Amino acid sequence: MAPAGAKRNILERLDAGEIVIGDGGFVFALEKRGYVKAGPWTPEAAAEHPEAVRQLHREFLRAGSNVMQTFTFYASDDKLENRGNAQRFTGAQINEAACDLAREVANEGDAMVAGGVSQTPSYLSCKSEAEVKGIFKRQLNVFVKKNVDFMIAEYFEHVEEAEWAVQVLKTSGKPVCASLCIGLDGDLNGISPGDCAVRLVKAGANIVGINCHFDPMTCVKTVKLMKEGVERAGLKAHYMVQPLAYHTPDCNCQGFIDLPEFPFGLEPRILTRWDMHKYAREAFNVGIRFIGGCCGFEPYHIRAVAEELATERGFLPAASVKHGSWGAGLEMHTKPWVRARARRDYWEKLKPASGRPKCPSMSTPDSWGVTKGHADLMQHKEATSMDELKPLFEKAKC
Amino acid sequence: MAPAGAKRNILERLDAGEIVIGDGGFVFALEKRGYVKAGPWTPEAAAEHPEAVRQLHREFLRAGSNVMQTFTFYASDDKLENRGNAQRFTGAQINEAACDLAREVANEGDAMVAGGVSQTPSYLSCKSEAEVKGIFKRQLNVFVKKNVDFMIAEYFEHVEEAEWAVQVLKTSGKPVCASLCIGLDGDLNGISPGDCAVRLVKAGANIVGINCHFDPMTCVKTVKLMKEGVERAGLKAHYMVQPLAYHTPDCNCQGFIDLPEFPFGLEPRILTRWDMHKYAREAFNVGIRFIGGCCGFEPYHIRAVAEELATERGFLPAASVKHGSWGAGLEMHTKPWVRARARRDYWEKLKPASGRPKCPSMSTPDSWGVTKGHADLMQHKEATSMDELKPLFEKAKC
Amino acid sequence: MAPAGAKRNILERLDAGEIVIGDGGFVFALEKRGYVKAGPWTPEAAAEHPEAVRQLHREFLRAGSNVMQTFTFYASDDKLENRGNAQRFTGAQINEAACDLAREVANEGDAMVAGGVSQTPSYLSCKSEAEVKGIFKRQLNVFVKKNVDFMIAEYFEHVEEAEWAVQVLKTSGKPVCASLCIGLDGDLNGISPGDCAVRLVKAGANIVGINCHFDPMTCVKTVKLMKEGVERAGLKAHYMVQPLAYHTPDCNCQGFIDLPEFPFGLEPRILTRWDMHKYAREAFNVGIRFIGGCCGFEPYHIRAVAEELATERGFLPAASVKHGSWGAGLEMHTKPWVRARARRDYWEKLKPASGRPKCPSMSTPDSWGVTKGHADLMQHKEATSMDELKPLFEKAKC
Amino acid sequence: MAPAGAKRNILERLDAGEIVIGDGGFVFALEKRGYVKAGPWTPEAAAEHPEAVRQLHREFLRAGSNVMQTFTFYASDDKLENRGNAQRFTGAQINEAACDLAREVANEGDAMVAGGVSQTPSYLSCKSEAEVKGIFKRQLNVFVKKNVDFMIAEYFEHVEEAEWAVQVLKTSGKPVCASLCIGLDGDLNGISPGDCAVRLVKAGANIVGINCHFDPMTCVKTVKLMKEGVERAGLKAHYMVQPLAYHTPDCNCQGFIDLPEFPFGLEPRILTRWDMHKYAREAFNVGIRFIGGCCGFEPYHIRAVAEELATERGFLPAASVKHGSWGAGLEMHTKPWVRARARRDYWEKLKPASGRPKCPSMSTPDSWGVTKGHADLMQHKEATSMDELKPLFEKAKC
Repeated sequence: MAPAGAKRNILERLDAGEIVIGDGGFVFALEKRGYVKAGPWTPEAAAEHPEAVRQLHREFLRAGSNVMQTFTFYASDDKLENRGNAQRFTGAQINEAACDLAREVANEGDAMVAGGVSQTPSYLSCKSEAEVKGIFKRQLNVFVKKNVDFMIAEYFEHVEEAEWAVQVLKTSGKPVCASLCIGLDGDLNGISPGDCAVRLVKAGANIVGINCHFDPMTCVKTVKLMKEGVERAGLKAHYMVQPLAYHTPDCNCQGFIDLPEFPFGLEPRILTRWDMHKYAREAFNVGIRFIGGCCGFEPYHIRAVAEELATERGFLPAASVKHGSWGAGLEMHTKPWVRARARRDYWEKLKPASGRPKCPSMSTPDSWGVTKGHADLMQHKEATSMDELKPLFEKAKC
Repeated sequence: MAPAGAKRNILERLDAGEIVIGDGGFVFALEKRGYVKAGPWTPEAAAEHPEAVRQLHREFLRAGSNVMQTFTFYASDDKLENRGNAQRFTGAQINEAACDLAREVANEGDAMVAGGVSQTPSYLSCKSEAEVKGIFKRQLNVFVKKNVDFMIAEYFEHVEEAEWAVQVLKTSGKPVCASLCIGLDGDLNGISPGDCAVRLVKAGANIVGINCHFDPMTCVKTVKLMKEGVERAGLKAHYMVQPLAYHTPDCNCQGFIDLPEFPFGLEPRILTRWDMHKYAREAFNVGIRFIGGCCGFEPYHIRAVAEELATERGFLPAASVKHGSWGAGLEMHTKPWVRARARRDYWEKLKPASGRPKCPSMSTPDSWGVTKGHADLMQHKEATSMDELKPLFEKAKC
Repeated sequence: MAPAGAKRNILERLDAGEIVIGDGGFVFALEKRGYVKAGPWTPEAAAEHPEAVRQLHREFLRAGSNVMQTFTFYASDDKLENRGNAQRFTGAQINEAACDLAREVANEGDAMVAGGVSQTPSYLSCKSEAEVKGIFKRQLNVFVKKNVDFMIAEYFEHVEEAEWAVQVLKTSGKPVCASLCIGLDGDLNGISPGDCAVRLVKAGANIVGINCHFDPMTCVKTVKLMKEGVERAGLKAHYMVQPLAYHTPDCNCQGFIDLPEFPFGLEPRILTRWDMHKYAREAFNVGIRFIGGCCGFEPYHIRAVAEELATERGFLPAASVKHGSWGAGLEMHTKPWVRARARRDYWEKLKPASGRPKCPSMSTPDSWGVTKGHADLMQHKEATSMDELKPLFEKAKC
Repeated sequence: MAPAGAKRNILERLDAGEIVIGDGGFVFALEKRGYVKAGPWTPEAAAEHPEAVRQLHREFLRAGSNVMQTFTFYASDDKLENRGNAQRFTGAQINEAACDLAREVANEGDAMVAGGVSQTPSYLSCKSEAEVKGIFKRQLNVFVKKNVDFMIAEYFEHVEEAEWAVQVLKTSGKPVCASLCIGLDGDLNGISPGDCAVRLVKAGANIVGINCHFDPMTCVKTVKLMKEGVERAGLKAHYMVQPLAYHTPDCNCQGFIDLPEFPFGLEPRILTRWDMHKYAREAFNVGIRFIGGCCGFEPYHIRAVAEELATERGFLPAASVKHGSWGAGLEMHTKPWVRARARRDYWEKLKPASGRPKCPSMSTPDSWGVTKGHADLMQHKEATSMDELKPLFEKAKC
């Protein structure tokens, strides 16, 4: 395996004004390919089916991604057991396999390996700062051993927990990203995006931003608020964004999880590649330079981001050899009226129909309790009976 | 490589009343993964990136597919050159590589290998029966050499050309499927689905049906008309269906090609896994026993077909180990209101929103000429200037 | 009261190639104004609130209508009693008041008075031809006494009953129109629109066509089928159409009654005045010369019909003094961007949004039984308990 | 004419905790009936066609309205001439005729007469306070002469101009309402609804609130903000709301005028009577006691408001004799499945379809300039050529 550092690391790139393109959503993509189970969402496929995980890494690399995130989401031993799967592999085996796969493919191109940690059940259950930090520390040990290039603390709904994560990850000496899964209204305690960003930078994060839970434009707007907060505070940072590939105009503060369509009916909300062009341009204009994706992002979505920013980056991704920008490949279609679609103007203006006239265009989010300090509820999350839980949630309803 | 015939072949299965599950759409899936170019749609990836093609075969196998179709769509030398790609591989190399990949993965499970031919530019240019049959014959030679298990003549808009293909394929002694890409109105010469089916059976097809161009329910209804025609004629056949995974209620007689969203804005039309359950059940009820998919079908769509028919088949597909039927996996989700969605009733009744309130639900198909006997137009299809062509099409407009 | 015949009657006009514009829907318009009760839909307002009925007649006259239909829908004594209203007026009083109001306003402009009969409960209950004809005869007596200009037999779902009505109305010596409330599939016994039209002409109707139940374009297409039938049979007739002012693409064979939105949630389906322009032009092009409206048509809808056909008729309706064609009045709006809408092109192309993103665009029609020969069910229609009825309908379900 | 004061006036009613129901939108309703021209929107029909205006007053009275607003919108001489209509009547004649009609019908039931003034071109052209107040004073003179029961200053986009109006109207000694046509973002100078309300109360308004421009729920929410502002300031007032009868979720700060559908394509946005029940309940819950409607409100919409609040008011409106609450009249329908809709639950939950699958559910508002202090633009509003204006608006664009 190539030594980390053989390539320029993320801060060198960002400090030089370069664009770093992230990868897409492994959990959702591998669920559709048959290797991850929706519900537990655990990453044992890294050990069980390495060829499938490797292939997805490779597709994102070809699509233009400079970051291979290790497929280690929810990969702590307790979480894995928790999920009731009789495991053929230990957590350590899964984590190590994931690091090796990410490194193997990163070495095939111009990509870095990022290790990741995310929010813990322990925090929601009101465990102490020391306990929560202990969890992050144990995860970090694997990433240090495998010598990833940088760390990402992502998918946090409470900025306090994200600060704790950043403080732990900083001990590695590696660059640290901090990414919250919040929207314009701020974290679940109502702390504004700007204030969240300031706290994360003060905790030591080099790069701050948003991932998951909301559609691209909402995430970009939220990062813009974070940037304004950081600048108002006289601080400096880089910015990242890794949104959903789903339209979520009808979400409440908890994002797409509360939509009735989550997670098995989201298809009509999937963004087209042309939506991704708009997203990439807008993120760039706002000053974000680490631009990637989360759930729903398939390789062609990342390719669209790389194609939109090809002028700024100076090159097209490898996979563009199989793609004509703005539909140019259609010039070779057999039907003349399809050939007539081989132009930017056509795709940029298209308002795609859903073909579902008996369905609405927007939903009412579903949620029994959206709460600040809802730890007592979360402690019951393993209860077997929904009936037990419902009254608690009714009480907590916002 | 295991000899063909080690497993029971398709007619044995169908004669025994078994369900044969097909695979999904390679061209569209590999375009999104970065290995096929939209427009030319040629399969050089079989030679260039075998790991990507192998992986997709494997995902369909795990999802329940009993048929590995060789990834040889549009793989004749003339077509490949035509498309303007400086080729690193000859047509023969691509075709042989595709056969080998299909066989390799078929051998990993209970699957057969099917070779395929489809409609030719030569037919549309009014070449002679001998010339058109010559093309089919050259393609067949590869499949015979590679000893595929059976043959599929698919994606024909004119039944006459499909008859010619069937007549050629029959010379191999292998079972022959004949599948048209037509809707309820019949082929482009206005021959009804029932009459088409009768002609195909008389030409020697063992299995007849429909693929591509229309959504699942439309395709099932069209096969039903074919079946009624065959039965009325006192003939016997088996039936197959491999539809799109897109909702197309607004199509005209040429199918999804004419929709303004084809091929890069179809996302909001993608069927959910639950739509696939309904499709599989309806196809089964109509008496179709070879049930698969075409463009837009991803592995999870095939898995849904296999899950719907698990009782009839007596087993679940391998990938179901990573999937709870009807959302059962959500019982392990952290949010209680998402856990409450772990039930058939919820997903069966969901009307998914598109999240696109400024878009319509249906489109107006686009087509400059939908014609019977439009050969003169088609001869111009390689013209460089659209302006030259437009008047011709205006004239021919139906 | 002016004598009938002072003006040219309907056949003179139609024979001379003139366009006769009908009026709109009294029952629905007066329900919204507070004078008719939805459910019974009876016309006692003619006697109770003559000023309201007179005003609506006058608005249609000003809008361009040449026909004042007497507001006598469902005005037979049995129907009025049936409906459980303690009546302050007898059926005779209501009918006579309605005739007087229609004549009074017709005399204010270039309009004729038309008396009307429609389908009877007696027919559905399988009463004899003599009994059903007796009902029509008693209604006709009032219209003869009041000397209306011509007669309309309208809103029939079974052509046989319409034939009986025509035969009775012919005895008056007045011109007779026959209008069915059926769609492209024909009457409820499955008799095609063309065959229905032939039978009505043979029974003596001078003018045949369609009213109510479906949207304008569907009704125009159905009249076209009627016209083709009549011409094929070597007969001659004039044609009329009086459709709904609601979009009904999702109707089944019984029309808008089965839509879940009937009758109190139809608002999002209301046609704009611009939709009416298209309707009027299409009706004219098909060869229909008696063009009006039914439920949902407000005065401004009729005005739009008259404005579209102003060139052919040679004049604008009186109410156009308060309306700029194709939005021309907006030239005087205070906001410049609204002034910019004062042009045909703008309104002709507008795809109006519903502002209802959580609603579908199409519904599933609702119907317990759509039946041919469903007399046994209809006999129970006065039953008080729905529970009694439901099983009967389940049994009859089509 | 009956003397004002014969009935209890509006403040006595509101102070006693009673609900006062307003009327609906005369300008839009009479445009559809053929008596008002869209664009100029002037009320000469009061003199030209008194029977049409009287009839509409009567319908609102029957529907439950306690307020007959004189039909005098835009009835100043300069405005009437401005509009380029060769007038058969002077402004004074029109205004006096309107007052007489309102009084005549008010005397037929339990209703008061309200005179009204609204925003002036003079204010937008930066005329002095004295000049603008002079205009209001001249209008007031007519209302004092005709002895209306109270005054409404309505449809103001700038609170400053509304204050001036209130100050003038107060000199009459009559109760004064002040109603702005703003949304949640406040007036066009960005003054919040709460601050606007405080200023209006301080200027002497007894009743403050919102009319026109936005849908019912938006207007109710805006009045809620006004009420909170007044209460925070330690002041006291009564509250009124008279919204549109159109869904406007997609409006910008200037309301429905900017929607592409204004004013001739709004049909799919019309609220049903059931939407009105929700509106009336919500307005009541928020503490608003003067509840009416503006553009789009037809008599049946006001009836629905009166029916929703029948328990609180102790009686149903006269027109309810022709309406079964929550569809009860359908019990008498001939089709059983329509009879099954005679229940609250059905209509309360219905999501009405638009029948327009090729249309979006939401629009993009249209506006060349939404400006604070856009007087220079407004001065050009009489320019004949749009081309002259466009660059000015481009420059001012917000």
